[in-house]
Amino acid sequence: MSGTSSAGRLIGVGVGPGDPELLTLKAARALGEADVVAYFAKRGNGSHARAIAHPHFRAGAVELPLDYPVTTELHRHDDGYRSQITDFYDASARLVAEHLDAGRRVAVLSEGDPLFYGSYMHLHVRLAAHYATEVIPGVTGMSGCWSQAGAPIAQGDDVLSVLPGTLDEAELARRLAEADAAVIMKVGRNLPKIRRALATAGRLERALYVERGTMQGGGCVPLAGRGEEAAPYFAIVLVPGWNMRARSGAEAEG
Amino acid sequence: MSGTSSAGRLIGVGVGPGDPELLTLKAARALGEADVVAYFAKRGNGSHARAIAHPHFRAGAVELPLDYPVTTELHRHDDGYRSQITDFYDASARLVAEHLDAGRRVAVLSEGDPLFYGSYMHLHVRLAAHYATEVIPGVTGMSGCWSQAGAPIAQGDDVLSVLPGTLDEAELARRLAEADAAVIMKVGRNLPKIRRALATAGRLERALYVERGTMQGGGCVPLAGRGEEAAPYFAIVLVPGWNMRARSGAEAEG
Ligand SMILES: C[S@@+](CC[C@H](N)C(=O)[O-])C[C@H]1O[C@@H](n2cnc3c(N)ncnc32)[C@H](O)[C@@H]1O
Ligand SMILES: C[S@@+](CC[C@H](N)C(=O)[O-])C[C@H]1O[C@@H](n2cnc3c(N)ncnc32)[C@H](O)[C@@H]1O
Repeated sequence: MSGTSSAGRLIGVGVGPGDPELLTLKAARALGEADVVAYFAKRGNGSHARAIAHPHFRAGAVELPLDYPVTTELHRHDDGYRSQITDFYDASARLVAEHLDAGRRVAVLSEGDPLFYGSYMHLHVRLAAHYATEVIPGVTGMSGCWSQAGAPIAQGDDVLSVLPGTLDEAELARRLAEADAAVIMKVGRNLPKIRRALATAGRLERALYVERGTMQGGGCVPLAGRGEEAAPYFAIVLVPGWNMRARSGAEAEG
Repeated sequence: MSGTSSAGRLIGVGVGPGDPELLTLKAARALGEADVVAYFAKRGNGSHARAIAHPHFRAGAVELPLDYPVTTELHRHDDGYRSQITDFYDASARLVAEHLDAGRRVAVLSEGDPLFYGSYMHLHVRLAAHYATEVIPGVTGMSGCWSQAGAPIAQGDDVLSVLPGTLDEAELARRLAEADAAVIMKVGRNLPKIRRALATAGRLERALYVERGTMQGGGCVPLAGRGEEAAPYFAIVLVPGWNMRARSGAEAEG
């Protein structure tokens, strides 16, 4: 990693929550100007971000898929998993750096917003100090989900907590009980635990479950009425704040 | 408010954090299709949202500015203020409903994302049950700010708290002490209080101050090094989570 003046430019590009039209004008332009387009992918699965961004690639752009190592047998708090995934991000950063050293513009795709729980961040912390870097924000998955649900999430003095569904049940319940509004990300197989935590915190009745927000086949249902089957990767739980209180007349300024 | 089949369509349109290029393709299209474009404005000040959206209006679109009543003498927890502002939102909803009843498509502009602390929500709760309604999510102000700062905000198991700067000092300090990462909105004249709460919570050293994120003349500085002068309306405080911990090797999966 050099940082010479002839070096290229790293651009973290948020592609939005799923609907290809929720890409920004700026992201579309940056994709059209990129020499190289990199994206993380799970081997075998396509990349959602690539599918959204692809129509905007310039002819002849080089694609750099960064395939996650197969780690399904290891738990993510396991040391073996940690070192394997750290090695993978190091190697990915070196691949991107080679293109930057050759003076190329490298766009790295990110679902939603790049710096909000996004894997782009793993490249950013390794490269941004050494190369000209720009981050193009995107519409987050959660914004896509509450818009699809038509659910005002927070207003006035509301505190909004964004909680990873990976937290343990007691911590989830405690945090939910304290929040005026909440978003629970990384739902997937954590859904039964999330449901119990919501019930403990007295928030289950308010909770909405959104699957594949803004994507084809996406939808929203009250969580309490949803069956017990596992949730897919693109699933989120919303606990809206203000709109409930507005009904009781406690309306506050915007 | 009728809801007949000949009625129009209400569209909440997020215009993003400030940079006109951070509008989505979908918002640009919706603006081009709208018969009426409504936006909240403070009398005398232009509307930021209108300035961003205006190039996309179709020729002949009707503009419907909704001017806030002058309430500067009243505190927002005052009953007089509350009833004045509630009357204003009721009257604004009626103005929009007249256009909807005439079968028109009405786009209501919102800075950032419409359902995230946005004034569009006051129209949404009054109209969405009666008219076909769609919300087009936008890039939030906070995403614009952490992207401009190049600051990864949250990763892995981080809990992110979004806190209105209007909360009282003790509650701010308590919430800040518990969050892995935080965003403080509605900074303005609350900045001195916010600074004290951050110091109490031991978070002042990590805090970034971003003014006019993604807008012309915008910038980011460590809050601890910033002077005591009042902050403008478009100002935010960020307390990034993960990127600090990443340095100590505690890296987690995306
Ligand atoms: C690793 S995080 C990445 C977040 C992304 N950077 C963003 O800004 O939204 C992935 C989680 O976001 C949530 N998510 C993202 N997009 C979604 C969508 N369209 N519908 C439902 N959930 C979504 C899911 O909870 C998923 O587990
Ligand atoms: C009433 S809230 C509206 C939020 C908006 N709906 C959104 O999605 O970002 C207004 C607050 O958002 C923050 N904000 C919005 N855009 C900003 C920007 N470009 N730069 C700094 N702060 C911003 C400020 O703290 C401001 O007080």
